[in-house]
Amino acid sequence: VVKGPNSYQPALLNRYNQRIQQELFLSTQKHSRELRGPFLYHLGSADQNWNPLYGPNHSGKALRSALCLYAFHALNNCWEKALPAAIAIELLHNFSLIHDDIQDHDTERRHRKTLWTITGQPKALLTGSAMHAVAYLNLLDLNNRGINAEKVLMTSQLLFKTSLDMIKGQVLDLQFEQSVQIDRYRYLEMIDFKTGSLISCSLTVGALLGTDQKSTIKAFSQYGLHLGRVFQLRDDILGIWGQSNVTGKSTSNDILRKKKSFPIIYAIEECTPKDRKVLLRIYNKEALGKQDLDIVMEILERNRSKNKTEEFIKLEALSAIEQLNLMRIDHWALKEGKDLVEFLVSREY
Amino acid sequence: VVKGPNSYQPALLNRYNQRIQQELFLSTQKHSRELRGPFLYHLGSADQNWNPLYGPNHSGKALRSALCLYAFHALNNCWEKALPAAIAIELLHNFSLIHDDIQDHDTERRHRKTLWTITGQPKALLTGSAMHAVAYLNLLDLNNRGINAEKVLMTSQLLFKTSLDMIKGQVLDLQFEQSVQIDRYRYLEMIDFKTGSLISCSLTVGALLGTDQKSTIKAFSQYGLHLGRVFQLRDDILGIWGQSNVTGKSTSNDILRKKKSFPIIYAIEECTPKDRKVLLRIYNKEALGKQDLDIVMEILERNRSKNKTEEFIKLEALSAIEQLNLMRIDHWALKEGKDLVEFLVSREY
Repeated sequence: VVKGPNSYQPALLNRYNQRIQQELFLSTQKHSRELRGPFLYHLGSADQNWNPLYGPNHSGKALRSALCLYAFHALNNCWEKALPAAIAIELLHNFSLIHDDIQDHDTERRHRKTLWTITGQPKALLTGSAMHAVAYLNLLDLNNRGINAEKVLMTSQLLFKTSLDMIKGQVLDLQFEQSVQIDRYRYLEMIDFKTGSLISCSLTVGALLGTDQKSTIKAFSQYGLHLGRVFQLRDDILGIWGQSNVTGKSTSNDILRKKKSFPIIYAIEECTPKDRKVLLRIYNKEALGKQDLDIVMEILERNRSKNKTEEFIKLEALSAIEQLNLMRIDHWALKEGKDLVEFLVSREY
Repeated sequence: VVKGPNSYQPALLNRYNQRIQQELFLSTQKHSRELRGPFLYHLGSADQNWNPLYGPNHSGKALRSALCLYAFHALNNCWEKALPAAIAIELLHNFSLIHDDIQDHDTERRHRKTLWTITGQPKALLTGSAMHAVAYLNLLDLNNRGINAEKVLMTSQLLFKTSLDMIKGQVLDLQFEQSVQIDRYRYLEMIDFKTGSLISCSLTVGALLGTDQKSTIKAFSQYGLHLGRVFQLRDDILGIWGQSNVTGKSTSNDILRKKKSFPIIYAIEECTPKDRKVLLRIYNKEALGKQDLDIVMEILERNRSKNKTEEFIKLEALSAIEQLNLMRIDHWALKEGKDLVEFLVSREY
């Protein structure tokens, strides 16, 4: 992973990463040449000519698959059994990224050109849909690892539903783009669907495969929802105050992209009528320039939007840790779960 | 169904149609408002404001779901048990249509505006992906109808693989658009993936749910592959010589759209070097006009492309019937399977 200056990674992400990357690679090899190349490119294991990339690759953190393995591991002495589910989840996430980039016309992700800028939109659209199907196909390997058919069906159902929730979140996000009447609670609902659902699903699936105890499964699920909010709200901060050379996201600031993320919505809600008028006028423009950016940044500053978002993140982090404390898991698992929360609260990439 | 002047429908399509439309409608009702409207519009049960459409609707023939129910029915005294699979297949088909229309910028289907022209591309893309997930979700209802978990998993796997095959066919189709080096065998391979795979899968799934006899399942599967070719090659003929007010497809002729369908590929392969030069020059143009259309039609005429395509269809129809004769099924089922072949050979819409 190409990392920024602050390249600490918590144990929870480090332990499983290499195996996840291997398995992601293997999962692409079963498919036809036409799909394999674009799959590998997007996953960071091939270059623009679909030739293999050796050395430091450009994959993501693989947060979601690591969470799935972690939940299983926290309840058992091993984690390999949950790999097919973890890979399915990572592919589901990447399917949504491929289509997202097309929709948003984003040209850069993880310090590289997005897939559609290389293949054109129609082929990237097909590659994304193929990855959607491959995700589910991968899940069925659970059955070959000794998970019984009933549980595989339950897991499938959860994944299909999560896929729908993510899409619902994206539809809400599209609607928000055309609206200025968003309050922070509707925004949180949207990110729970768009981001939280899959992060929570990752942990739920790992727990579901690892135990039959309903209260434990539920605690992992809730831990995931709060973690999802921490993750997304920190993303919102990085999107405005982060450095794109570290985050690997598109070089243009979220404000220039007119994204109505939490700090903006908070400011619109809390600022003076005069500032609100200025903000709404700017957000109704077709495109924003450097001057607009400066004005918006000033209003955010005046309303302490960044601090307020950070306070909100800390509350969600506490709720996440509360759920961890409800679980009867080993000390190492408890510690790693907490470390991950801390990491997500303050990550720079 | 709004039908053309020749509105005969074979028993195999008529028997299950009403129930299929009901179940398709019900399958949409479980989902959130944001998805339900676009789903229903595309399926022909709602208007542009997502209000219900009564009276003659604009649904398709529901060929694929009918084939699934037919295969099950031919092997059992009932067919309701296979409904969740039939609906899943129909939704999978419609997912691919929604995305296809975006890719091809098609503005009309089944005598109506395509979904993306109403919602915009981003939302139509999301609606299609949601329908992809809903298709699989629907399949799991088989388990509630007494199909055991192992068989549901087998069926899921077949559906995921078919989804990938369809996408592979679409990728090949995209490649063909940019190439003039296509022979009829590569074209047939492409349509086997793009169209044949789902038609064959529909029958395979119905048979798989209805029996454990491998040879029977295989015969249904093969019947489906030949049926798929009959269906697609007839589509190719209608795309050039059909009347758009009957077919409900886009008003522009396949030639004007520069689609390299079977009759065109046949002509390029078989015509004189002089005609070939003319054809390739025309197909290299950015856009074709009325005069180009006339020239191409004349070359097709001179090479008897339509007749040759019809001959090819008849051979595939015979192969389909051969597979039917291998099955040990009741007389009514044999007759209806044959009637369907006859219908697809000569359909006008």
